[in-house]
Amino acid sequence: MAQNEVFQYSLISALMDGVATHGIPISRVLDHGNHGLGTFKSMNGEMIVLDGVCYQMKCDGTVEHIHTPEEVITPFATVARFQPEVSTRATISSKKGLKELLSKLFPHGKNHFLAIRMDGTFKRIEVRTAGGQCFPREGMVAVAERQTTNEFKGIKGTIIGFRCPAYVMGLNVAGDHLHFIDEEKQKGGHILAFETEGDVEVGVSLMSKFHLEVPTEDEEFNEASLVHDKDGIQKVEG
Amino acid sequence: MAQNEVFQYSLISALMDGVATHGIPISRVLDHGNHGLGTFKSMNGEMIVLDGVCYQMKCDGTVEHIHTPEEVITPFATVARFQPEVSTRATISSKKGLKELLSKLFPHGKNHFLAIRMDGTFKRIEVRTAGGQCFPREGMVAVAERQTTNEFKGIKGTIIGFRCPAYVMGLNVAGDHLHFIDEEKQKGGHILAFETEGDVEVGVSLMSKFHLEVPTEDEEFNEASLVHDKDGIQKVEG
Repeated sequence: MAQNEVFQYSLISALMDGVATHGIPISRVLDHGNHGLGTFKSMNGEMIVLDGVCYQMKCDGTVEHIHTPEEVITPFATVARFQPEVSTRATISSKKGLKELLSKLFPHGKNHFLAIRMDGTFKRIEVRTAGGQCFPREGMVAVAERQTTNEFKGIKGTIIGFRCPAYVMGLNVAGDHLHFIDEEKQKGGHILAFETEGDVEVGVSLMSKFHLEVPTEDEEFNEASLVHDKDGIQKVEG
Repeated sequence: MAQNEVFQYSLISALMDGVATHGIPISRVLDHGNHGLGTFKSMNGEMIVLDGVCYQMKCDGTVEHIHTPEEVITPFATVARFQPEVSTRATISSKKGLKELLSKLFPHGKNHFLAIRMDGTFKRIEVRTAGGQCFPREGMVAVAERQTTNEFKGIKGTIIGFRCPAYVMGLNVAGDHLHFIDEEKQKGGHILAFETEGDVEVGVSLMSKFHLEVPTEDEEFNEASLVHDKDGIQKVEG
């Protein structure tokens, strides 16, 4: 896959329906991109792919570097071979502030995917980490109700994520979807809120190619209803 | 692209919003598949790709073989490099009958794409051909109101199409989307209804990889609302 193309395995709708027992090895995800996010078997933690390395951020607050990506599977991941088209420095006070910055950087980009990376110090970051399913096919709304939230202050690290156009809602999360990991690779999660401490480095690319692969030979996926639950997805991933 | 993977340029939602002035050359579509359907600049006619050759089926009833695919553009197309996984013979009395046959052939395939081809004699085929936009950005609902319909009886030819899973509604048409061309390549269109004359050859493949490319540098696309108009799409493409 070329630079700045989206590769995605499975669907957010499938996670909503609790399809998370099977998947593809992380190594196959890394073949398609060095930048991205996702989850792990049974929605056990948050995935971040940073500079081609995959980390599992768990609900007990620990972060595991996935050293054997061929042995660990993911039921859902989105990655790209990221090469920033636009690099800038900016002070961003909220997710809304990021949204405004992205609209300014790509005024004609509302119907495209964006890959986003921010490096620097954050005054405040609020994250959640999913603790995993209690049983197969438990849906993401129920899993998210048990999520752990954490707040980090004055923390150095990296935010990795995507902005997806509205028309992919259900396949992915429409809007901004961001994960964070700190510089020491010891803390992180799915971002609920953030504020930078002064300027951070911001890199963004617009992407017009989206490669989707859905599970095969996976009864959970085959049987799932995969309905277009926009409100539910926004609730747990927005 | 490997066999039995879907390549799609742009979105059905974009056609709904009248985004049809620009596009990619047919030759680029043919690079990705030898089997498929779509439309042409300004929604002028119905496209069918049969055995790697692209035909434009126009509302005046004529069919044009696109001899210079690098010079003709498409604002929307879906193709695959088709290799049937299942080949059978069947008598099919309606679109509903096809739906039932596909569910029987791929009982676990409701959440996957299928590529479909039928060759044989048809007792009756009802098609429509879109006559094109009267002005740029005219939406597909308005264009479809002026469509020409034709009925063919006892006609030999080929049906080419796809069944798309429900979760791609908006990106493509959920359900079966079929185009027809007769053996002499002189008649055809988008299928509204059909009935086979006894058995026809049926080839079907299940596909789990979907490659989407959306327009860039296209103000029509960039400005379009691309809302999820399920009812509208079903009305004009169902």
